[in-house]
Amino acid sequence: MKETYANRLHNLARAQQDSHVDLVAIVPGANLRYLTGLQMHTSERITLALLPADGQPVFVLPVLEAPRAEANLGIEASLYAYTDEQGPGPAFRQMAGDLDLEAKVFGVEHLQMRVLELRRLEKHAPNARFVDAQPLLSGLRIIKDKEEIEALRRAAGVNEGCFRQVMEHIKPGVTEQQLASVWQRAVLEAENSQLSDIPTIVASGPNGASPHTTATSRRLQKSDLVTIDAFLLVDGYYSDITRTYAVGEPDEELKRIYYVVQEANAAARDFIKPGIRAEEVDAAARQVIDKAGYGEYFIHRTGHGMGLEIHEEPNIVEGNDLLLKQGMVFTVEPGIYLPGKGGVRIEDNVLVTETGCETLTNLSRDLVRL
Amino acid sequence: MKETYANRLHNLARAQQDSHVDLVAIVPGANLRYLTGLQMHTSERITLALLPADGQPVFVLPVLEAPRAEANLGIEASLYAYTDEQGPGPAFRQMAGDLDLEAKVFGVEHLQMRVLELRRLEKHAPNARFVDAQPLLSGLRIIKDKEEIEALRRAAGVNEGCFRQVMEHIKPGVTEQQLASVWQRAVLEAENSQLSDIPTIVASGPNGASPHTTATSRRLQKSDLVTIDAFLLVDGYYSDITRTYAVGEPDEELKRIYYVVQEANAAARDFIKPGIRAEEVDAAARQVIDKAGYGEYFIHRTGHGMGLEIHEEPNIVEGNDLLLKQGMVFTVEPGIYLPGKGGVRIEDNVLVTETGCETLTNLSRDLVRL
Repeated sequence: MKETYANRLHNLARAQQDSHVDLVAIVPGANLRYLTGLQMHTSERITLALLPADGQPVFVLPVLEAPRAEANLGIEASLYAYTDEQGPGPAFRQMAGDLDLEAKVFGVEHLQMRVLELRRLEKHAPNARFVDAQPLLSGLRIIKDKEEIEALRRAAGVNEGCFRQVMEHIKPGVTEQQLASVWQRAVLEAENSQLSDIPTIVASGPNGASPHTTATSRRLQKSDLVTIDAFLLVDGYYSDITRTYAVGEPDEELKRIYYVVQEANAAARDFIKPGIRAEEVDAAARQVIDKAGYGEYFIHRTGHGMGLEIHEEPNIVEGNDLLLKQGMVFTVEPGIYLPGKGGVRIEDNVLVTETGCETLTNLSRDLVRL
Repeated sequence: MKETYANRLHNLARAQQDSHVDLVAIVPGANLRYLTGLQMHTSERITLALLPADGQPVFVLPVLEAPRAEANLGIEASLYAYTDEQGPGPAFRQMAGDLDLEAKVFGVEHLQMRVLELRRLEKHAPNARFVDAQPLLSGLRIIKDKEEIEALRRAAGVNEGCFRQVMEHIKPGVTEQQLASVWQRAVLEAENSQLSDIPTIVASGPNGASPHTTATSRRLQKSDLVTIDAFLLVDGYYSDITRTYAVGEPDEELKRIYYVVQEANAAARDFIKPGIRAEEVDAAARQVIDKAGYGEYFIHRTGHGMGLEIHEEPNIVEGNDLLLKQGMVFTVEPGIYLPGKGGVRIEDNVLVTETGCETLTNLSRDLVRL
């Protein structure tokens, strides 16, 4: 992996030079892991890496994180460690003295960096200019390499196994929370897999009309639809799958919206290939739902990129004219949500290939009655 | 709970008036939950609440989160929802038009708000001044009310039950990861409890010398010490417990540091009462370890507050002259870490009472040989 991190840093440095960003500042999260191999968590103790367009990376971090950082860091870097008694001030001052931060352009992660770290940088680099590093970083991460694709494939496989275990428990009387627990236990028992901190969505009957609800104590009833949207990590990479199942025989309108969503999901996936715009994938799904008369009930974008984060580029949304390329991985997840009645969402994970796309998730998309 | 949230908002508004903060901006996280009852996750879709010192709170949020927000919001508020196609711009513009944001002082959460939300606010309130809202917010949250204390007590009880299950599996040959899995499964099976996204720490043998490591595939060996630091939530409140166990009979130095840490933990807890300074608790633990000659190996503060977050105020660290008050809850967790050899940490959760402190965690602190 050392070579992988060196390559990624090299690509970032080249992108920095092209866009005149002297230093990219990275806090704990997916970008830090992608570029350095280091997995850390955000806390009140600042950890921050500065990656110069030219030169060796530096880290400021709490002394109690230093052993872990030294053991796991996939790149060469200088470490500035501080104790709880000192706080980060002295380490930042020393680092700022060693590097020349005067009048530099800093790229910072708008989606990740907190005001805490921004103010700290502003203090030690008072004449710096701060720009959004997100475009540089997603420019690198949006195309997955072979190892990343393998991890995403493994994650999809593990998630599908967990869904199969949940399917065996779907019946009238079971609560949404119980189904969520079955899925979570299955994740813990699967090798190398890890739960995300975002709660699993299990939405039955009328609860299905809210796309981002969580599992409640509601008991499944005959004729319900139940939507399960569940995400896990394998070797740091996400799988994010949604399926909607029927408890016995649903009513005519619920069946109708199921088939519409199924068709929209297929239409979007059929459309995907290198060279088309992200918004065209959204439109392909949306047209099916619009034509069936449910357009106003499809209240979110068709999909999002995924990798080290559950939501990353490319955004599969109206207005995004980004051209799809081989190696991009994203979700296709059209849905219809009827307030007071119920909802359907069918979500797959797809990889853009040389000529089209490969769907990484193979669970049946037919209406399964349990 | 409606009354609880109304009281908390009232207390915040009073504190805002005293400190001339016109609006407090809150993003998803513990403060949002504490003040409004709303549990949401940070994502690339901005969710932001503005709480005026005088007037009704407003929310800007994605339309797909609106049903959940309306169902769970514990306060009266105006909602400005935006679709994925629109992005947050129009909703922020409309909100900024309805409220007068000109030349206002905004309090923002330095520990929580991202550059993304800060830049968005700066754009729609170009003449505003931004100050750190953290002191206002922790001023409210640092004293726990009766319901919060009950939740913290329940969380400690559940965590202790999970530790007891892990103890049964400690023996030579078991891996750190297997022990972490036992603990995680126990959490999932316990009523109302929830895993945190920060990985459980299981550090055996020489790995114990790194305070913030994670569980590895290392197998426990005879004479190891193994440190388990595990945190979970019950009804939104944390428990955070560490115990160090012996696999059979450890060598003399490991036993010696165990007894030193045990004594330091007891000394700190004995010292706690209203009116003393937070740093005095740290000093009480540190003196014991210093006197035994291991001061340089106790490389972190003695403890941290806990509640809706795993780390919050009060910070039990040298230099913090905050006076302890009844109703504060924090950890006491001295440790000694000998590089290449191993480590010991013993962490309890304590509540400051009228006359002293109550330890919420009752697992044995004696050296247990398994």
